[in-house]
Amino acid sequence: MDEQELTDEVVARLAGTPDPRVREVMTSLVAHLHAFARDVRLTDGEWLAGLRFLTETGQTCTDTRQEFILLSDTLGLSSLVDLVNHGASDAAATEPTILGPFYVPGSPSREFGASMVEYDDGGEPAVLRGRVLTIDGAPVGGALIDTWQNAASGFYAVQQPGVQPATNLRGRFLTRADGSYEIRTVRPTPYPIPADGPVGRLLEQTGRHPWRAAHVHAIVSAAGFATVTTHIFDRASDYLDSDTVFGVKESLIRDFTPGQDGVLVCEHDIVLERAVLERAD
Amino acid sequence: MDEQELTDEVVARLAGTPDPRVREVMTSLVAHLHAFARDVRLTDGEWLAGLRFLTETGQTCTDTRQEFILLSDTLGLSSLVDLVNHGASDAAATEPTILGPFYVPGSPSREFGASMVEYDDGGEPAVLRGRVLTIDGAPVGGALIDTWQNAASGFYAVQQPGVQPATNLRGRFLTRADGSYEIRTVRPTPYPIPADGPVGRLLEQTGRHPWRAAHVHAIVSAAGFATVTTHIFDRASDYLDSDTVFGVKESLIRDFTPGQDGVLVCEHDIVLERAVLERAD
Repeated sequence: MDEQELTDEVVARLAGTPDPRVREVMTSLVAHLHAFARDVRLTDGEWLAGLRFLTETGQTCTDTRQEFILLSDTLGLSSLVDLVNHGASDAAATEPTILGPFYVPGSPSREFGASMVEYDDGGEPAVLRGRVLTIDGAPVGGALIDTWQNAASGFYAVQQPGVQPATNLRGRFLTRADGSYEIRTVRPTPYPIPADGPVGRLLEQTGRHPWRAAHVHAIVSAAGFATVTTHIFDRASDYLDSDTVFGVKESLIRDFTPGQDGVLVCEHDIVLERAVLERAD
Repeated sequence: MDEQELTDEVVARLAGTPDPRVREVMTSLVAHLHAFARDVRLTDGEWLAGLRFLTETGQTCTDTRQEFILLSDTLGLSSLVDLVNHGASDAAATEPTILGPFYVPGSPSREFGASMVEYDDGGEPAVLRGRVLTIDGAPVGGALIDTWQNAASGFYAVQQPGVQPATNLRGRFLTRADGSYEIRTVRPTPYPIPADGPVGRLLEQTGRHPWRAAHVHAIVSAAGFATVTTHIFDRASDYLDSDTVFGVKESLIRDFTPGQDGVLVCEHDIVLERAVLERAD
């Protein structure tokens, strides 16, 4: 039996998969996995090193750390899946980017213009403001902006229990009738993804840094519109050209400029597409 | 940025990998991983389910269980890597097959014709015999046959601590000057690979059984020859056509036939290739 015949036999063995979608996904997975091993002439030692790496990646996962998502992020798979699922959006709509591992549901509701800073570690005060709009430029009132970001230390609240309050730099804001929103916060900072595990070692082995460009996360939703998971990036940040998880999109980069009171202002409108079910009407 | 541009950017980011072989392997891995996600239009939910499956596979591994090797085995990757690394052997040489997860180094040395049965659980008595030969048919004296197999219960000694003695059905045998070997044992039995973890669930989801065809393992080595890791399969076994790890090779199937004393006899010659360094002389 030669190499291709072996692959064919494995694929044939999957023919009895009851669920057609599972069959399709597993058949493609086997074909690509085998093609990889054949193309690089994978050695016995490399095969074993790879399995050990995957084992350690699984064993590094805890309730608050997902090393496989980190691996997917750093291999660009997360951004690719994002494109596959959301890449067909209207070009006028705000572009999505990856969720990342630090989202925590249940952030506190905060008023228009309120601050989400609950702990001062020296971040530069900033205001995020703008409007949520339809493709046609009409305001979307009552849209929910669920937002989270890191502190000046580089850490998210979820990474620093006992230091930052759990809800620091997290909040859910509603737009006013004219679509406007306003969030008082601090300027986000670049930060390295957790690099003390197998993914960090892989980055080092491939000559890559672990840094993400500075950004604020937001999941924006409104009745009748497609929810968008996105970032706002700081144009002054390092790593915009080499974000380690391939999350930067040119259309999401904004300036943080000093306002009259010395507080930085970042203006960013968010454009939502109608939900698919609405469009079918 | 479209899907192909994203893949290209990830590949470009790997260009700084110091070790050329790591660069080659990682570049191919990213290309195939991305092609898989694009080809099947992997959904957000499938992506997350896949990462959860890999996480659980890693967390199922212990000192005595390697669930990622099991996954590799059942996806045919282990057999493929075996072919990639050892498939170019002389057609006259004994074919290799996978090592499997149950090999334990340091089996006891046993005399020609000695039994490796240390615990009786009702297996059918059997004798394995034959010669270790060169490609030209000359005997290889002093060749080491490091062998292991399961008991009638279906389990290897390493899987049943406290029931089977640790060295039950394991032994290292040397060939005599005429190349002959003789091993008293019991007939091996088909057995399911451990199916109570994520790999077992995947087999079930793809409509596959977890059974391996009955076999005896051997690693055969001799000074000046390439070591071969192989099996002897019992022709009367079920699952020869559907071995769940794709380990069966037609050339390794042998009859277990009743001898004069009622003990089963399995005759199997093992043909070794000269080691590459020897051939270069």
